[in-house]
Amino acid sequence: MFRLVHKMKLATIIVDGQRKVVVIDPSGERYTPAAEAFPDLAPSTHEDMVSLIAEIGRQKRSAPLEGSTAIAIDDLLPPITNPPHNVFCVGKNYHAHAHEFTKSGFDAGATAAEAIPEHPIIFTKPSSSLARPFGDIPLWPGLDEAVDYEAELAVVIGKAGRFITAERALDHVFGYTVFNDVTARDLQKKHKQWFLGKGIDGFGPIGPWIVTKDELDIANVEITCTVNGEERQKTSTKDLIFDIPTLIEVISRSVTLLPGDIIATGTPAGVGSGSALSHPGS
Amino acid sequence: MFRLVHKMKLATIIVDGQRKVVVIDPSGERYTPAAEAFPDLAPSTHEDMVSLIAEIGRQKRSAPLEGSTAIAIDDLLPPITNPPHNVFCVGKNYHAHAHEFTKSGFDAGATAAEAIPEHPIIFTKPSSSLARPFGDIPLWPGLDEAVDYEAELAVVIGKAGRFITAERALDHVFGYTVFNDVTARDLQKKHKQWFLGKGIDGFGPIGPWIVTKDELDIANVEITCTVNGEERQKTSTKDLIFDIPTLIEVISRSVTLLPGDIIATGTPAGVGSGSALSHPGS
Repeated sequence: MFRLVHKMKLATIIVDGQRKVVVIDPSGERYTPAAEAFPDLAPSTHEDMVSLIAEIGRQKRSAPLEGSTAIAIDDLLPPITNPPHNVFCVGKNYHAHAHEFTKSGFDAGATAAEAIPEHPIIFTKPSSSLARPFGDIPLWPGLDEAVDYEAELAVVIGKAGRFITAERALDHVFGYTVFNDVTARDLQKKHKQWFLGKGIDGFGPIGPWIVTKDELDIANVEITCTVNGEERQKTSTKDLIFDIPTLIEVISRSVTLLPGDIIATGTPAGVGSGSALSHPGS
Repeated sequence: MFRLVHKMKLATIIVDGQRKVVVIDPSGERYTPAAEAFPDLAPSTHEDMVSLIAEIGRQKRSAPLEGSTAIAIDDLLPPITNPPHNVFCVGKNYHAHAHEFTKSGFDAGATAAEAIPEHPIIFTKPSSSLARPFGDIPLWPGLDEAVDYEAELAVVIGKAGRFITAERALDHVFGYTVFNDVTARDLQKKHKQWFLGKGIDGFGPIGPWIVTKDELDIANVEITCTVNGEERQKTSTKDLIFDIPTLIEVISRSVTLLPGDIIATGTPAGVGSGSALSHPGS
């Protein structure tokens, strides 16, 4: 029933009001509860992904070959609901998007010549923005009409560290997941710093699961975003301005990274603000 | 031994490795442990300020008239070590400072005409930046040489809320404390978004205590900052651009505020970047 490989997909689900960490099988359709997959680990790790990541870290664990229970999409929670820090987010980190965003007029104070940042632009979104991967985005009357998707590859930290060098950065990575950095563009612009337009409750769908780092070649991962069936974003991480090791080096110079921390690496071109499809006037 | 007033000063201390919430007496020199002052409340509230604030909220509690034990300054921790969100911080929120900062050249992308913001500029600092009120600021080799103090009045939220109006905002306030928004100016500038220059581990001394809101007339509180005995900042909250009710209204439009959340309201003029005293060249 088990195979000794490292490749693993981990999700958090809620069933009958109980939060469970689960291992998703290769089909992506069934799971094994962490309580069954890792019976030797403390009960807290079976309910809380941050505890599980801190515990298994870079250990080589076996994963169940077949899941025992079918996944119901509505049971999926954010794989991590309580990262130790706000989600670290990166602005304008794909060449094509950096040009598109600066051109859109929503990039307060930036001129076309400043489109490509010389240093990573780091802001954060609070854990209260994290949302179920397949849920609705909570809008409200009076919110601006320029709410935008931003599909992103997100890094999940596995091992604590400060002053991590780019060379050693991937040693601190547990795995990766998918993040939607939903943004209220006019709040982003009018408040200059991006927190209020980005950090809104429920504006951060994440998941459905975390894949361990050996599942991905991060130098060339394709990010695709479809909106109502229409493809809006499709780019490889080859277009990244600052790669993942560089981001970890730069962020960990200021903040001690901890297991369960999330770094959303920025969105490629094709977001609504830069697209004639959703904002004919812009 | 007790008097039935609401005015209270609350601090967090560590004694023999044990964290305790304490009530500071009017002399500011002695304390009574929360376990003695509020024996009817759950033990968690005696060790954790966020729990205590959530529990007593806006209740009218009595405070001990005299503390039983002398405070040792080195025992004082941040009154709150684990706010539910990052500390919400406000940029350029005093008229004189807004001009001084934009003139300093560290305000990436802003021209003199844009010195006074039209809307509050909100960024955050993580809980890992919170530091003891009388401790040292942790610098490190290679950090820039433009590290700056920023004395600020901070608001502590007592009652949860979203879409709070300015009119009702003070109902959600528990009290106030003092915050130093320590800043690495060149990181603040070169990364555009301010998180990396502001959110550094240990760059947020706070306290020594929280005063309940009835202790202060927030329309006219004087903020003073001395550096090695020399007065550098001295301004009244009368010079605020966006007052506390407005800040609560604006932030709670994006994020549900929770008991124990902290809003640092911005720093008045006199910070190092704008001062010939510390940076003769700027």
